[in-house]
Amino acid sequence: MVNETQHACSASSSSRSDGGSSSGSESSKDNSRCSTPVLDADRHERLREKMRRRQDAGDKWFSLEFFPPRTANAAVNLISRFDRMGAGGPLFIDVTWHPAGDPGSDKETSSMIIANTAVNYCGLETILHMTCCNQTKDDITGHLQKAKRLGLKNIMALRGDPAGEEWEEEVDGFNYAVDLVKHIRNEFDDYFDICVAGYPKGHPEAESYEADLRHLKEKVFAGADFIITQLFFRPETFLKFMKDCQAIGITCPIIPGIFPIQGYHSLRQLVKLSKLEVPQEIKDVIEPIKDNDAAIRNYGVELAVSMCRELLDSGMVHGLHFYTLNREVATTEVLKRLGIWKEDPRRPLPWAVSAHPKRRVEDVRPIFWASRPKSYIYRTQEWDDFPNGRWGNSSSPAFGELKDYYLFYLKSKSPREELLKMWGEELTSEESVFEVFTCYITGEPNRNGYKVTCMPWNDDPLATETNLLKDQLEKVNRRGILTINSQPNINGKPSTDPIVGWGPSGGYVFQKAYLEFFTSSEIVTALLKVLKKYELRVNYHIVNVKGQNITNAPDLQPNAVTWGIFPGREIIQPTVVDPVSFLSWKDEAFALWIEQWAKLYEEESPSRMIIQYIHDNYYLVNLVDNDFPLENCLWQVVEDTFELLN
Amino acid sequence: MVNETQHACSASSSSRSDGGSSSGSESSKDNSRCSTPVLDADRHERLREKMRRRQDAGDKWFSLEFFPPRTANAAVNLISRFDRMGAGGPLFIDVTWHPAGDPGSDKETSSMIIANTAVNYCGLETILHMTCCNQTKDDITGHLQKAKRLGLKNIMALRGDPAGEEWEEEVDGFNYAVDLVKHIRNEFDDYFDICVAGYPKGHPEAESYEADLRHLKEKVFAGADFIITQLFFRPETFLKFMKDCQAIGITCPIIPGIFPIQGYHSLRQLVKLSKLEVPQEIKDVIEPIKDNDAAIRNYGVELAVSMCRELLDSGMVHGLHFYTLNREVATTEVLKRLGIWKEDPRRPLPWAVSAHPKRRVEDVRPIFWASRPKSYIYRTQEWDDFPNGRWGNSSSPAFGELKDYYLFYLKSKSPREELLKMWGEELTSEESVFEVFTCYITGEPNRNGYKVTCMPWNDDPLATETNLLKDQLEKVNRRGILTINSQPNINGKPSTDPIVGWGPSGGYVFQKAYLEFFTSSEIVTALLKVLKKYELRVNYHIVNVKGQNITNAPDLQPNAVTWGIFPGREIIQPTVVDPVSFLSWKDEAFALWIEQWAKLYEEESPSRMIIQYIHDNYYLVNLVDNDFPLENCLWQVVEDTFELLN
Repeated sequence: MVNETQHACSASSSSRSDGGSSSGSESSKDNSRCSTPVLDADRHERLREKMRRRQDAGDKWFSLEFFPPRTANAAVNLISRFDRMGAGGPLFIDVTWHPAGDPGSDKETSSMIIANTAVNYCGLETILHMTCCNQTKDDITGHLQKAKRLGLKNIMALRGDPAGEEWEEEVDGFNYAVDLVKHIRNEFDDYFDICVAGYPKGHPEAESYEADLRHLKEKVFAGADFIITQLFFRPETFLKFMKDCQAIGITCPIIPGIFPIQGYHSLRQLVKLSKLEVPQEIKDVIEPIKDNDAAIRNYGVELAVSMCRELLDSGMVHGLHFYTLNREVATTEVLKRLGIWKEDPRRPLPWAVSAHPKRRVEDVRPIFWASRPKSYIYRTQEWDDFPNGRWGNSSSPAFGELKDYYLFYLKSKSPREELLKMWGEELTSEESVFEVFTCYITGEPNRNGYKVTCMPWNDDPLATETNLLKDQLEKVNRRGILTINSQPNINGKPSTDPIVGWGPSGGYVFQKAYLEFFTSSEIVTALLKVLKKYELRVNYHIVNVKGQNITNAPDLQPNAVTWGIFPGREIIQPTVVDPVSFLSWKDEAFALWIEQWAKLYEEESPSRMIIQYIHDNYYLVNLVDNDFPLENCLWQVVEDTFELLN
Repeated sequence: MVNETQHACSASSSSRSDGGSSSGSESSKDNSRCSTPVLDADRHERLREKMRRRQDAGDKWFSLEFFPPRTANAAVNLISRFDRMGAGGPLFIDVTWHPAGDPGSDKETSSMIIANTAVNYCGLETILHMTCCNQTKDDITGHLQKAKRLGLKNIMALRGDPAGEEWEEEVDGFNYAVDLVKHIRNEFDDYFDICVAGYPKGHPEAESYEADLRHLKEKVFAGADFIITQLFFRPETFLKFMKDCQAIGITCPIIPGIFPIQGYHSLRQLVKLSKLEVPQEIKDVIEPIKDNDAAIRNYGVELAVSMCRELLDSGMVHGLHFYTLNREVATTEVLKRLGIWKEDPRRPLPWAVSAHPKRRVEDVRPIFWASRPKSYIYRTQEWDDFPNGRWGNSSSPAFGELKDYYLFYLKSKSPREELLKMWGEELTSEESVFEVFTCYITGEPNRNGYKVTCMPWNDDPLATETNLLKDQLEKVNRRGILTINSQPNINGKPSTDPIVGWGPSGGYVFQKAYLEFFTSSEIVTALLKVLKKYELRVNYHIVNVKGQNITNAPDLQPNAVTWGIFPGREIIQPTVVDPVSFLSWKDEAFALWIEQWAKLYEEESPSRMIIQYIHDNYYLVNLVDNDFPLENCLWQVVEDTFELLN
């Protein structure tokens, strides 16, 4: 564990150890830059470096391939799948490029936008496929520029299928993947990591296996960083291919493409497209069970596991690439059985870090968007710098407007009918709204027997950590303190704690208790009287939809509410209650009442008017108990408030 | 205590509460600026604002006037006095301007350099006096530019005494203080706060009391911010003067100049210079006791206390200005009896903050210079920004060179003879050096009966906090672990703790245990073996004079070793162990062996050769125990090391 570096420095006082890029008084130009404690080498390495580091360390890894969805709803589902499968710790995912589907467009289903979402909103290292055949140089450069702009750092350079049968080479055109590789290196220098495809059986159109190997070598020598192979059915196919590559001087990583058979028809289609032949021993097993999906999938998993084991045991393979067909079960099972799915990945920070290169240094966010991280990323996408002055007073730039509610990653995952069942076909009073909040907290079915599994402010069931506060939350929601965000206080738990831990091991994490809720002006009046007694122990911000704002925060400074102390590092304070951004959050939090809830009902309907009334008259309140080593006093504050009202 | 601000904001999402100077995407240009949590409004206000805030809050304050010393030794003493009297919490000090003494020069005794030292090294808000009579415009502008460059923000604009008796007004020259006030405002706009002198009895050369009041009004209307008065003997003199000023429209603060009588001769001299008359009732008391200094001083203190009480009780006086005559006892006693001397001033940070405007945002320093803050300030004076990227990796600029050893504020306060008595007229072995270190720790006299009250690395006796570690320190120094810096671990003590507390009240302070020492290569070898067992719990840096450097710090990142958590604020981490600056400190720490210790002895003498041997062969080691909630393991590390050696 000990990284003992010895480096001799000259004895002169101006000598510097490495790591200092500048010296002398000129260096001071850079000093105002906020340099962030690096939590995790992963965040600063490019993909090919991560790959090399994993290989050097002897760590086995995996990656996942997806294709772009056809509909917006399918896109929402795919993104949830990214989040779930991302939790298993893939080194990267990749998104295929479908020339027919307008892959470079801004449509929510385009390859470009799906890859953008994976990088920026799901925090996944992502490779975007790109084909060059039948496209102009300008088109391709345009796609690459856009990818760069969106924060994509990796391209899989492919030829693509020629349109029609009469394809002929164009002079000076993009005829082969190697042309695209050269173009990327010419136009974008070393910005992108480039991946190319390898064919363990030779490309079906190649003159010969050997000729195809020579083409592959050309692609690598033109600037490709690594190779992912076409699928294959026998481990020896890949191992022979790998040795043949090495024999002709290809030294970059070669990652086997694994295709767990998931069904009879998908296999037939894939085989047709790839012009591969299924070995007789596999056909013999599959044909008799071709109508039994579960049996085929079980067989596919067995087959993949045994092939992967053989590959890994060979010592020549460090990573496995999975053709998921956008499905979860089979691939996840193979990975779990291989023991390379991370059951409990260590969180580098208490929130999911975006993989956008510009955001890699981001290490602090306001707590308000804790349940809406994608919205936060969306609304701060125009920012140039992260962290943003550590949220120091007056340096927060403006948040993006709320006008883009239609954007699919800000919408609820549930359809209208489901939301109505959860939140009430008909509301009769403010109390029926209290009930919805209470059912969400308790997990009990509502009066119509439906469980409330999401709310406009929380698209997922209650977090494990929030569950610690469940009993108190239930009590206060019943009485009209409608909680939308909270965290318990923590006075130095190990950074490896399974529920609240984050960051490198050997550290300690801390939190101040936090509670955020909507409530009536009547309750706010009583609350303010109670808060006077607590003086500076409790910081509060209370705001209504019109922006009337009551606070005791000194000089509008941010309050750090989550922080961690680690060996050999500066202190990390990843979550703050920031008074300035609270006013941007306020707009979003109030708007969700209308956009997600009120609009479920007819205009002028009583249900809609109840939500509208709450929107117009309630206050959004947040409370921080600064005395984190003592028992959380926020429940007492609320208790005192109710008592005062009685 | 609760600062409840209500401010209405428009409901639009782009609306901002105040405090945000920028909006829209253009604002992001400023975002990379590291904005620091403001601990203390004092650090960002100019003097006239501080004065106004104190007045509004009903706080009484005091200020202290000093004159520049004649000799370098006297300068060293005066600076120590600044440190001691600064601890009582003056709102500012001022340094007089002696035209005959080359006041604008770089001499260590010049008014300019003394004021510079007060601001930059002692962290005191400082007014520099400046006279204009018989000087050219260019001279004056040059002095003002230099003052600005040094970080001085306040000027007391005076005419000064004309040279000789035949003084005549010069056309277009600087004939009166008002000319200097106008000049400062013309040339430097609002950069400086300007103070002018008021004469409660009228200036001795003025045509009349009324004419002098009109002159004063001119000075104020030309741009002066406040008035300090000449001394006076009766409170009613000042109170009448103040009413008369108000009557003619002078509304700025008027601060009474208080002169505690400290001796017969100094009183007579002052009276002669100021052309004031001592009231008969005072003469009557003083004349009979004129040879009894103590009696006169006691009387002077009584008189000053009663006059100050009357002034403060009038409700018209908020601050008192003391003519100290560079003496400590009388003024301190008056202040203590008035109850406005701060016995236990709250420390805004664990180290003394410099008052240079550029350094006001400084909130983190390396721990190495903890006992040599003036050297740290000196060596970082060329830096453009504080904090310096929060010491994030690779952004520390170069430290100033060590060549300027002659600078008086880097020298020891003790003369050579005293140092020899403390550190040994003759050294016979390395062990006799161990003894010196041990005596410094224990406070016991050395074998010749002298107490060791300072060391080359610590110009003062052991800090109260270090005293907590005294027993362990003694043990290890005896055995050749020559400690020069240490702090205990602290797991969340109140920020108001009298020994280790700092920062605003209501917070919690934390520390990681730290130990820094010189030791032999033999001990280092054993230590490194022991440290392997502790893995990342203990971070270490071990370096010799040649710069051979052994460390387990990840990526040369700084390790925060002192931090505080406060209500409504980001986390403050004012002290770090920074691997890069450690190499600059190493040069200084090793050089002190030679410059301060070895050079006490003759060249080629055995004593000198022993120190030279240590300098050439020992290592400088620092250790941090990252597990601050557990018992400090560093003593065990050292214990294990000794055990391994036996």
